[in-house]
Amino acid sequence: MAKSQEGNMDVDYVISYHFTKTDKATALAKFEKLVEALASVGLQTEVRNGESQSVLLFLRVASDEHLFGEVYRSRVRDWIHGVRAAAPPKETREALEAEPLYEAERLRIIYQLITHPQSEGGAGITPKEGEWENVHSLFALHDKAYNDDWMKKWRTSYFLKTEDLDDIRNRFGEKIAFYFAFTQSYFAFLLFPAVFGTGAFLLLGHFSPIYGIVSALWCTVFTEYWKHQEVDLGVRWGVRGVSKIEHRRRDFRHEKLITDPITGESVGLFPVKKRLQRQLWQVPFALTAALLLGTLIATCFGIEVFISEVYNGPLKWLLVFIPTGILTAVMPVLTTFLTSMATQLTQYENYETHAAYETSLTQKMFVLNFITSYLGIFLTAFVYVPFGNIIVPHLDIFSVAVRPFAQNEKQLAGPEADWTINPDRLRKQVIYFTVTAQLVNLAMELIVPKLKLRGGKWFKKYQSDRAAKNGGTTPNPAANDPPEDAAFLKRVREEAELEVYDVTTDLREMVIQFGYLSLFSVVWPLTAVSFVINDWMELRADAMKIAEVMQRPTPWRADTIGPWLDSLSFLTWLGSVTTSALVYLFSNDGLGPDGHPANIKLWALLLTILLSEHAFFLVRKGIQFAISKLDSPGLQQERRERFLVRKQYFEENLNQLKSIPKMVDAGEEITKESLEEDARRGSLKESTPEVRFWGRQKGWKETVTVGKNLIERYEIEASPEEKKEL
Amino acid sequence: MAKSQEGNMDVDYVISYHFTKTDKATALAKFEKLVEALASVGLQTEVRNGESQSVLLFLRVASDEHLFGEVYRSRVRDWIHGVRAAAPPKETREALEAEPLYEAERLRIIYQLITHPQSEGGAGITPKEGEWENVHSLFALHDKAYNDDWMKKWRTSYFLKTEDLDDIRNRFGEKIAFYFAFTQSYFAFLLFPAVFGTGAFLLLGHFSPIYGIVSALWCTVFTEYWKHQEVDLGVRWGVRGVSKIEHRRRDFRHEKLITDPITGESVGLFPVKKRLQRQLWQVPFALTAALLLGTLIATCFGIEVFISEVYNGPLKWLLVFIPTGILTAVMPVLTTFLTSMATQLTQYENYETHAAYETSLTQKMFVLNFITSYLGIFLTAFVYVPFGNIIVPHLDIFSVAVRPFAQNEKQLAGPEADWTINPDRLRKQVIYFTVTAQLVNLAMELIVPKLKLRGGKWFKKYQSDRAAKNGGTTPNPAANDPPEDAAFLKRVREEAELEVYDVTTDLREMVIQFGYLSLFSVVWPLTAVSFVINDWMELRADAMKIAEVMQRPTPWRADTIGPWLDSLSFLTWLGSVTTSALVYLFSNDGLGPDGHPANIKLWALLLTILLSEHAFFLVRKGIQFAISKLDSPGLQQERRERFLVRKQYFEENLNQLKSIPKMVDAGEEITKESLEEDARRGSLKESTPEVRFWGRQKGWKETVTVGKNLIERYEIEASPEEKKEL
Repeated sequence: MAKSQEGNMDVDYVISYHFTKTDKATALAKFEKLVEALASVGLQTEVRNGESQSVLLFLRVASDEHLFGEVYRSRVRDWIHGVRAAAPPKETREALEAEPLYEAERLRIIYQLITHPQSEGGAGITPKEGEWENVHSLFALHDKAYNDDWMKKWRTSYFLKTEDLDDIRNRFGEKIAFYFAFTQSYFAFLLFPAVFGTGAFLLLGHFSPIYGIVSALWCTVFTEYWKHQEVDLGVRWGVRGVSKIEHRRRDFRHEKLITDPITGESVGLFPVKKRLQRQLWQVPFALTAALLLGTLIATCFGIEVFISEVYNGPLKWLLVFIPTGILTAVMPVLTTFLTSMATQLTQYENYETHAAYETSLTQKMFVLNFITSYLGIFLTAFVYVPFGNIIVPHLDIFSVAVRPFAQNEKQLAGPEADWTINPDRLRKQVIYFTVTAQLVNLAMELIVPKLKLRGGKWFKKYQSDRAAKNGGTTPNPAANDPPEDAAFLKRVREEAELEVYDVTTDLREMVIQFGYLSLFSVVWPLTAVSFVINDWMELRADAMKIAEVMQRPTPWRADTIGPWLDSLSFLTWLGSVTTSALVYLFSNDGLGPDGHPANIKLWALLLTILLSEHAFFLVRKGIQFAISKLDSPGLQQERRERFLVRKQYFEENLNQLKSIPKMVDAGEEITKESLEEDARRGSLKESTPEVRFWGRQKGWKETVTVGKNLIERYEIEASPEEKKEL
Repeated sequence: MAKSQEGNMDVDYVISYHFTKTDKATALAKFEKLVEALASVGLQTEVRNGESQSVLLFLRVASDEHLFGEVYRSRVRDWIHGVRAAAPPKETREALEAEPLYEAERLRIIYQLITHPQSEGGAGITPKEGEWENVHSLFALHDKAYNDDWMKKWRTSYFLKTEDLDDIRNRFGEKIAFYFAFTQSYFAFLLFPAVFGTGAFLLLGHFSPIYGIVSALWCTVFTEYWKHQEVDLGVRWGVRGVSKIEHRRRDFRHEKLITDPITGESVGLFPVKKRLQRQLWQVPFALTAALLLGTLIATCFGIEVFISEVYNGPLKWLLVFIPTGILTAVMPVLTTFLTSMATQLTQYENYETHAAYETSLTQKMFVLNFITSYLGIFLTAFVYVPFGNIIVPHLDIFSVAVRPFAQNEKQLAGPEADWTINPDRLRKQVIYFTVTAQLVNLAMELIVPKLKLRGGKWFKKYQSDRAAKNGGTTPNPAANDPPEDAAFLKRVREEAELEVYDVTTDLREMVIQFGYLSLFSVVWPLTAVSFVINDWMELRADAMKIAEVMQRPTPWRADTIGPWLDSLSFLTWLGSVTTSALVYLFSNDGLGPDGHPANIKLWALLLTILLSEHAFFLVRKGIQFAISKLDSPGLQQERRERFLVRKQYFEENLNQLKSIPKMVDAGEEITKESLEEDARRGSLKESTPEVRFWGRQKGWKETVTVGKNLIERYEIEASPEEKKEL
């Protein structure tokens, strides 16, 4: 058994049952129902006081025998879906001995036991949803000892080894392990562009085509290699093919019931056409998002350009921050609004499976993040630089923002005659996004949850103090704790208040970061250096986040980073376009325009893009081919497993065949039999032409004799003249 | 049993054993060995005289029992490789009753029995190769009655139904059936562009962007739909996944023997690196081919332009045919040479499996065919038109070709001052390739083999006449035929002389034809009309070819048209580029250049291509998505099979689990047991905190009581003021 956590009182899961919003009678009835449902699937329960109008329900599997059954069932299901090559041994105990349960597997199966609908053998508890609104959270307890070890180990090691990833997989499940594996892989790959980028920065200058080509190549190799790596890890962790197992969404609303032509069961159906119609809303959604975010970003961009390059009145140093201020204030509101729109739209699209839902939501999130992350740089590179001379004179519409500070109209007037585009603006912007923003983000990720925690505690204390002043008491949940459980219960109460970890947020962050490298690093080749430093910390910060400021995540399985992989491929492709365009637009080597937009030739730009894009397609095919030739321990292991299974099946099924004798001397034997047969048939009725045809040569030896005869006769019959000529 | 052919004397296969080139002793010894090898795998033999120094060896399976074993073995192998969802029933006879053998399956299995190496249970006969050089051919006999029916039916029906394809599959195997299915599918799809093209021709004029867009869309839909169709047919015919079963090539030469880490067997290895090096020769090969063919085509093109547009001397009407003459004479020699080069190079690349070999050869053949088929039109469209004014004046180098006929130098001088490009040249060329060449080709396909046959017969007669004059005799192989077998043996002797059918040639023809439509039909929208007529005949001509002028093909399995599918995708993609470029270059609507190359803007051309190509990528994704949503009988059948198998496995494996009682009243039962357990453990040693923690509430009902108590107490303890605020 993989239950090795010390200090957790053998607890498998904890349910935090809140009754704040429900009237007492319902709360009591529901509580009884909850405990009964849990008991019905073989879970032992204990209840204790929780914080702020809640009780904590501790769960553990009552009988190992029961759990084994569930594990076996899950493994058989895996086998049938092709996740595992061979059927698990029929004897459950044997199966578990051959392949012991790891902690994440145990926790996943218990989680499913609790949450699966009753029709599938679960207790049907759905936290925060429908009937079970009062079930505020369902979480496993952190393994303090392991977490401390983990943190200590990571703080002192530079690289994560595959064993470290295995460890994460065993504790937190494959989905989170895949995030760490991806980030680690990305981190390792980053070392090359970091070194090469430094060299390019020192030797080649900015916008170097050589750096551009190498960077595009690197991005492609990384993306393709990661796809290969995913397969390898999937096999290593025994989860390859897991993403193909479909999990029906509980929220799926069917339009009508049909009888499945395959299973004969009655299933809910939602017409594809109707979903397609709903999906079409994605277009106005994307346009709205682009319009809203684009207007915001373009406005701030315009104000910024105006202030820094047109305005020359007082307080310029301060006013320059106006757009940043606007962005900081408005952007979060807008993205929160759009994210909620995206979620609602995805729900409205009414997908049947979790995977389809996730994919659709991820795509929308990618569009939003793409706009917020990259649009600013796109504006600078492809609007400000080529069309700056046309646009900047019109920016005086933004003078309204600084008019109060201007001393005279001249300070707000259009650019001077000798105004030229500031080529450094692009570089500064890229550095801002790839260094400053990354660091700020990292800090936020670590500090905000801690502040929230502290704030929450403070608020609670403040509340109870106030209640005390008012003569009442906020009941102290720990009041009746037995001394020996007190520390444990305190910890559980704290964990119950923590937030739930969402790995896709972290994954998205990495993919968006990769985008900067792929799309814009030619502007500033040190990008990768910044990312190497940032990601080293990021990996550790994320580990810390999981271990200390979040509830222990439910260990889900995965065999891929999912739809983000498509985003990665998309960014790699787009990189081949932007990099070549940037190299052409900003090239310093005299041929290109370099801040003289008049020199930009549209045909040359288009030709550059066209050639570079097609070179990319070609090279990607080559890289895919080369990587497909790579062998890996995972692939070997998979082939070995498959081979053994095949061999076993083959032997099992063909054993009986061997009992049929091979007719080595078939000639005689058969002939005798068939002769008799012929004779018999001949005597019964007239023999057929077939029987006579096959009866002429009796056995293979006679065929040989006749044949030899025919061959020799030919030689004799042929005239000597004829033979000479031949 | 699927052995229903009448008039074939129950013969399964015929071997034509030639001893022309071997001395007598070897011929005799080898013959004996051959018959013995065949007998050893349970084949009954009869020998008869053959034409021109050969004997005919008739084979049939001696015992059905033995064949059943082979069939069962083959089906088990399919199941293990995932081609069939369920294992065939263990009882062989039962398996064959549940799913009777079809003729092609029977013939395939017997063919494999004859040709597979002895280590795999076959007789190891390899026609025309190595030890078995004397085995000139190994073929099954045509089923005359069926063939006649087939021909009659097809001649009178407009459309082939799926049942007709099923019939072909049952007789000639899936590989040939897939060719017919593809051509039929293509033919059906062609009807739309034929109608639309006629409309466009009448209403929209040439180089219409609307036609271009519709045509590109159609090509994409067709390509993607065919991919979907392949899956469907694969399932229908029970061969889905067959292409994944690897067949080792007999010609594969290993470099060293290694122990396979997976199977533990000793296997031949050829280093991937070395193969990659050899594959690099494809680049010089492609360049050489392009150079040779390109020079030939460009030269003829140049001469043609010179004669028709520069030369104005006598005999112009005749001299214009000079380039056609050169092409007709040199092209076949060159392509034969290059094809043999391609084959040799592919052999040199030393692939392990048949599939890899085929793919590589097909790719090379596609390159060759691409150049010979399309280069001429490319030259006209993208060299002659835009650069004609620059190039044509230099064409007087070709004056050498017609100098003898010219009366004065003036007739050979450069073009006149008012010379302009002839925009009709492109159209004429496209019409030539899509009408004339197609018809010529179709006629050749039907007539040449018949002529060859007749020529062969005539030559034989001539030979024997001459021998008779010289006093010798060419032995008449039919001299000793029993009268009742005479007609049969005559037919077999004729079939032994026929050529072997190669389906890839026909498939290539169709794919190349599709290319004209995809790449150039915007030049002449009636292209599809010509193809509809041509393909209706083509389908029937191919059927006739198989039935009457070729040996009965060995029925191979396939689940796809193989590497040609990639060629199809490639041509579709390239079509999006050429069509848009042609529309821009030749647009009539006044904006474009239309014969005034000076008006061509490079940036506009590039922009057109860029936009159209990316629109194509986007639309293709959309079409792929839409088609992936289509259900089909095949997919449903596959899902049904999978579902039934899963259900069966699940039931088999989980039956025993049901014996473990579900703890519905787990609360009490467990608690009693665990209480006793607690008591026992408590008495044996000091109880642990865990035991005490879990011992506080005895059974779920007590948890409910305690929990309710906690909830109620909270409400009481909270002060009234507090409650009001909440």
